Amino acid sequence: MSSTYGQILRLSIFGQSHGPAIGMTLDGIPAGLPVDLEALQSFLDRRAPGQGDYATPRKEADRPEFLSGLLGGHTCGAPLAAVIRNTNTRSKDYEALHDCPRPGHADFSAQMKYGGAQDVAGGGHFSGRLTAPLCIAGGLCKQFLAQQGIQIGAHLASVGQVRDICFDPLAPQLAQVGSFPALSPEAGAQMLAAIAEARAERDSLGGVIECAAVGLPAGLGEPMFGGMENRVAAILFGIPAVKAVEFGAGFHAAGLRGSENNDAFVMERHQVRTATNHAGGILGGITTGMPLLFRVAVKPTPSIAKQQQTVSLSQGIEVPLEIKGRHDPCIAPRAVPVVEAAAAIAIYDAFLEYNARK
Amino acid sequence: MSSTYGQILRLSIFGQSHGPAIGMTLDGIPAGLPVDLEALQSFLDRRAPGQGDYATPRKEADRPEFLSGLLGGHTCGAPLAAVIRNTNTRSKDYEALHDCPRPGHADFSAQMKYGGAQDVAGGGHFSGRLTAPLCIAGGLCKQFLAQQGIQIGAHLASVGQVRDICFDPLAPQLAQVGSFPALSPEAGAQMLAAIAEARAERDSLGGVIECAAVGLPAGLGEPMFGGMENRVAAILFGIPAVKAVEFGAGFHAAGLRGSENNDAFVMERHQVRTATNHAGGILGGITTGMPLLFRVAVKPTPSIAKQQQTVSLSQGIEVPLEIKGRHDPCIAPRAVPVVEAAAAIAIYDAFLEYNARK
Amino acid sequence: MSSTYGQILRLSIFGQSHGPAIGMTLDGIPAGLPVDLEALQSFLDRRAPGQGDYATPRKEADRPEFLSGLLGGHTCGAPLAAVIRNTNTRSKDYEALHDCPRPGHADFSAQMKYGGAQDVAGGGHFSGRLTAPLCIAGGLCKQFLAQQGIQIGAHLASVGQVRDICFDPLAPQLAQVGSFPALSPEAGAQMLAAIAEARAERDSLGGVIECAAVGLPAGLGEPMFGGMENRVAAILFGIPAVKAVEFGAGFHAAGLRGSENNDAFVMERHQVRTATNHAGGILGGITTGMPLLFRVAVKPTPSIAKQQQTVSLSQGIEVPLEIKGRHDPCIAPRAVPVVEAAAAIAIYDAFLEYNARK
Amino acid sequence: MSSTYGQILRLSIFGQSHGPAIGMTLDGIPAGLPVDLEALQSFLDRRAPGQGDYATPRKEADRPEFLSGLLGGHTCGAPLAAVIRNTNTRSKDYEALHDCPRPGHADFSAQMKYGGAQDVAGGGHFSGRLTAPLCIAGGLCKQFLAQQGIQIGAHLASVGQVRDICFDPLAPQLAQVGSFPALSPEAGAQMLAAIAEARAERDSLGGVIECAAVGLPAGLGEPMFGGMENRVAAILFGIPAVKAVEFGAGFHAAGLRGSENNDAFVMERHQVRTATNHAGGILGGITTGMPLLFRVAVKPTPSIAKQQQTVSLSQGIEVPLEIKGRHDPCIAPRAVPVVEAAAAIAIYDAFLEYNARK
Repeated sequence: MSSTYGQILRLSIFGQSHGPAIGMTLDGIPAGLPVDLEALQSFLDRRAPGQGDYATPRKEADRPEFLSGLLGGHTCGAPLAAVIRNTNTRSKDYEALHDCPRPGHADFSAQMKYGGAQDVAGGGHFSGRLTAPLCIAGGLCKQFLAQQGIQIGAHLASVGQVRDICFDPLAPQLAQVGSFPALSPEAGAQMLAAIAEARAERDSLGGVIECAAVGLPAGLGEPMFGGMENRVAAILFGIPAVKAVEFGAGFHAAGLRGSENNDAFVMERHQVRTATNHAGGILGGITTGMPLLFRVAVKPTPSIAKQQQTVSLSQGIEVPLEIKGRHDPCIAPRAVPVVEAAAAIAIYDAFLEYNARK
Repeated sequence: MSSTYGQILRLSIFGQSHGPAIGMTLDGIPAGLPVDLEALQSFLDRRAPGQGDYATPRKEADRPEFLSGLLGGHTCGAPLAAVIRNTNTRSKDYEALHDCPRPGHADFSAQMKYGGAQDVAGGGHFSGRLTAPLCIAGGLCKQFLAQQGIQIGAHLASVGQVRDICFDPLAPQLAQVGSFPALSPEAGAQMLAAIAEARAERDSLGGVIECAAVGLPAGLGEPMFGGMENRVAAILFGIPAVKAVEFGAGFHAAGLRGSENNDAFVMERHQVRTATNHAGGILGGITTGMPLLFRVAVKPTPSIAKQQQTVSLSQGIEVPLEIKGRHDPCIAPRAVPVVEAAAAIAIYDAFLEYNARK
Repeated sequence: MSSTYGQILRLSIFGQSHGPAIGMTLDGIPAGLPVDLEALQSFLDRRAPGQGDYATPRKEADRPEFLSGLLGGHTCGAPLAAVIRNTNTRSKDYEALHDCPRPGHADFSAQMKYGGAQDVAGGGHFSGRLTAPLCIAGGLCKQFLAQQGIQIGAHLASVGQVRDICFDPLAPQLAQVGSFPALSPEAGAQMLAAIAEARAERDSLGGVIECAAVGLPAGLGEPMFGGMENRVAAILFGIPAVKAVEFGAGFHAAGLRGSENNDAFVMERHQVRTATNHAGGILGGITTGMPLLFRVAVKPTPSIAKQQQTVSLSQGIEVPLEIKGRHDPCIAPRAVPVVEAAAAIAIYDAFLEYNARK
Repeated sequence: MSSTYGQILRLSIFGQSHGPAIGMTLDGIPAGLPVDLEALQSFLDRRAPGQGDYATPRKEADRPEFLSGLLGGHTCGAPLAAVIRNTNTRSKDYEALHDCPRPGHADFSAQMKYGGAQDVAGGGHFSGRLTAPLCIAGGLCKQFLAQQGIQIGAHLASVGQVRDICFDPLAPQLAQVGSFPALSPEAGAQMLAAIAEARAERDSLGGVIECAAVGLPAGLGEPMFGGMENRVAAILFGIPAVKAVEFGAGFHAAGLRGSENNDAFVMERHQVRTATNHAGGILGGITTGMPLLFRVAVKPTPSIAKQQQTVSLSQGIEVPLEIKGRHDPCIAPRAVPVVEAAAAIAIYDAFLEYNARK
């Protein structure tokens, strides 16, 4: 099974980039929760293509139609199901690629797995477009978490070689991200310039996204394989192009001493807190009540206009490749809400499991 | 649910560090596979404590007793079950900690989750000792994978500030790790010196472990949440102290351009290969047939002899803490086989799922 | 989680009877399998309403639109997703029922579970209409099993007090069921007469459905909770109105002696077979290669025109109830293909799991 | 995967009848719940062999050793794990059977599945002895449910042709079962006589067990495949020899009219109840608050001393078979607590899932 996630929730994502529609079912949500469809649309708009110079000009409204699970603006206990029609497909762009897998894409591994039965148009089920239904599910979970006082936000920590400031690990500035998801306007401007430059050179850039959740109770998550890190990572790697995840101090912690990395416990307004947050709000897989903090690496868009080398699978020879079509020179900005969505799903699932044993 | 992993396999790990025993059940292994118990013991010995200056002097044989699943040296189709008795427990070392959670440990988050019902002795179910049954399961899966021509190996990429060379990403040198898991003897010696220095200063060190699997067929893994990265990460974060995971070029890829990061396809002895392996052998979540490569960050041992600050939960005040007992100044060396074990379980599970749809 | 089934497959069913649409996603199907959409439609037509005197006159084409998972008439590896629009809804029929739960329906238990947030129109997510997407998934699995030489068929063993002959337990007559699913035309005529009589008396009838699968290899199923009986029963009770399941001799076996109930092994054309089939083709949860045989009890349609007694939840008093709207006086005939569908899903899932460890 | 059950809980059962030990792990139990080990032993004693004329004389204490999950008489949040040593094994009894599968046993289907690698001694993992760890898990869940005011009891509804009275469907007499699990002493005496007679004739008998749970809140269970019937049936068929399950009026309901089978809602001391309980306390898969009621058919013990016919797998010829060894002439009496245990696990799992969304 492939496109299914969750323990108390069960998310199932379906669709191919150039098929009739993409969508999701989300089973296991409690009944009676209010859903704000306008706020959901605003959230989806953050991911939608065609927003600026840094994104593909393919314009699709990404307006979900809910088929199930809502009644009078509330969840009704039936599985939530929503679809987004694919209206702007140009499959002919992809036909030549059937024999020649694009470097950095799933074309080759899918060909080996499915023996040619897979849908190659637009990347098929491997397309970044499948993050739209992930954002439907995650946007809903964000709302349900907010109803419990839990907020999630993310921003670009870097694009290519341009680095921005990071969240305050003790009190992340979730609300300060504008239309371009950089914390500081200066870094944002430099990131946009770097993306424009890469595009002009028919190339692409990667980036790092930092995400935080605040307001979590201490005690979410289960030991070993049910830990928050396991759950969050297991969904994050479902976002195409994510190649790395680190929690709290992450790889940096590996170079520290215990006396530096350990977060001392302190009393703050009669509450137990930690003086630092190298743990990213998670100890033993379980939330401490401090902000949950992680970063993901997004690789540079593999579809570039520059000539590359690939092989012809039918002829068994190396051939040059020039990719046509519409592609983001950097997908990291549009991936910011996707990372929030994935985190929200994992955290809400853990929240419900926490309730089960309270 | 906490300590359960797998899709076709179902691994369940149980036990507390100072309880009667620790162990595992592993359900779903095909019947009729030969098991080499001596080779398994050698693998477990790589993780066992008491091996050198860098490890805790607590000596326990870590000899599993198999209760189920084996007959005449082969798997018999019944779930595999094995236990290791805890013989060398010193619970009185831990009693004073009940009120004062140790920084960097699960003491506080477990207290919040379980309300004091949890077993605090030796870390209870959160102890690194629980990686012994993980190694039983993983050591078995390593053998089953080897029977399919798939090899897994890992080594220390760094300890504290000491870095070793890394695997050749196109042909990892799996067999070259000696009794101390460094690739180059010089780096190994420096790592041991750094660990000895940290111990002398009553402190601890973290490290980075690099792991590779070779011989994998192309096509393992499922799209989105069933991808190899999702599966491997979901089990790796079950190893205490792991705070980050990156595949292939990982975080480094985020700073590259697409033209740099994309792995060009080439023909090599009539086989499709990639000229580089920034993808770590995984595209779209699915193996390409190139070596599967990843690195994990292991944080410094949180138990240090140096004085730290914590709080008294009962009194609501800050108090100093000096941790007694036996602790590894750096757990990264002993975590090397644990990382191999975790990878083997995830990969063998994906291998069986791949068979299901072949 | 509610509406999700499967181990290697993952079926998710969504929709409410009077919502915008109903549908299903079916993840985990191998790629490259041919799909005959006309044959699927013929299968769905067997379940569709409006076919005869015994069924509700509500007419809806039940034509699924596939949104994902198909390409050029074959499965493509992406999750299969299909929806059926609800075009003929009459929600006003149901409004009066909100306060007064219908006896024998899920109205009351859903009210207790969801606190009023549930969709009551037409039974919401509890409606028998949700068996249409179950038949999409099951009709597909029937095709995939037929490609492996495995056939599934069912018929009415009884309607009310009218009993038909049963399948030959050693060689079920799967192909002999006509447009009304009775094995003998005489019993079929009596069943139709009994249904017409119940309808005239503003009442309803139940029935028993017998189902068989032939061509199964020996060895499908897993011990204990992964057995074929567990898997088949776990999906069958997802069909509204099913209240009992028995395999082989079932309840009758409880009154036999071991010497009567045991199926003697015999050699038949160099194959091991059993002389009788009281086991229903399953021993220890695992198929023997003999026909897999089971029966399910379908309770009488709870919606009857006759006056009944219920309570007003708001007033806390007993009140009489007359149910309006369109209802089958006996749903057992239309449930026959649904039982086949459910069996096909469970068996195909077990078949894929069997492959995983072959 | 085979021997694993549960959604919020995760039960894993391991062991072979004549291997070193049998046991279970039960993950997901809340921490801090008191456990009465003496009461658990009394419960296990109801299942243990060697209790009377109707049971096998093989005597084993069935005393579980808890390896994990308990601390100071309470659950501690770690997975519960317990083992029972096999002390009284006589494997030589079984060797001759390797080539000649016993009718009615899993010998043949296991041989086809595992190709001879399976453990045949005493039935291996298919032995009824594996119900001992099921009773450990279920006995614990019974205690946890009792702490919530939920009681579960079962009795023999019939043995062979001897029928006892049944539970009052509105108020089951759970406490009235004595050392032999019959409701009426007269029926109990007749059952014992029938069993003695079958034993004297080297034959065996089946039986029907009726089980009830009272004190359940309305609202447990999820729609479709997560319903209480699905969950309870999915675990019950994990008990060897169970071939049928019916809820409430079950198969009898198929012969009733809707006006007879529907349970009218009534007000009783300001509570909504039903006047009858043909639904067995479940509507739409969800509890109504009325007693949950079901019956299971237990087939006659397949191991009989009487001569039977089987085949020699190696020679491909039919051969006579006389089974030696110790076997219950009727396992239904000892299966009564096993049915309670299975029901308790399924219900407690549903109870925890219900909490998750409350």
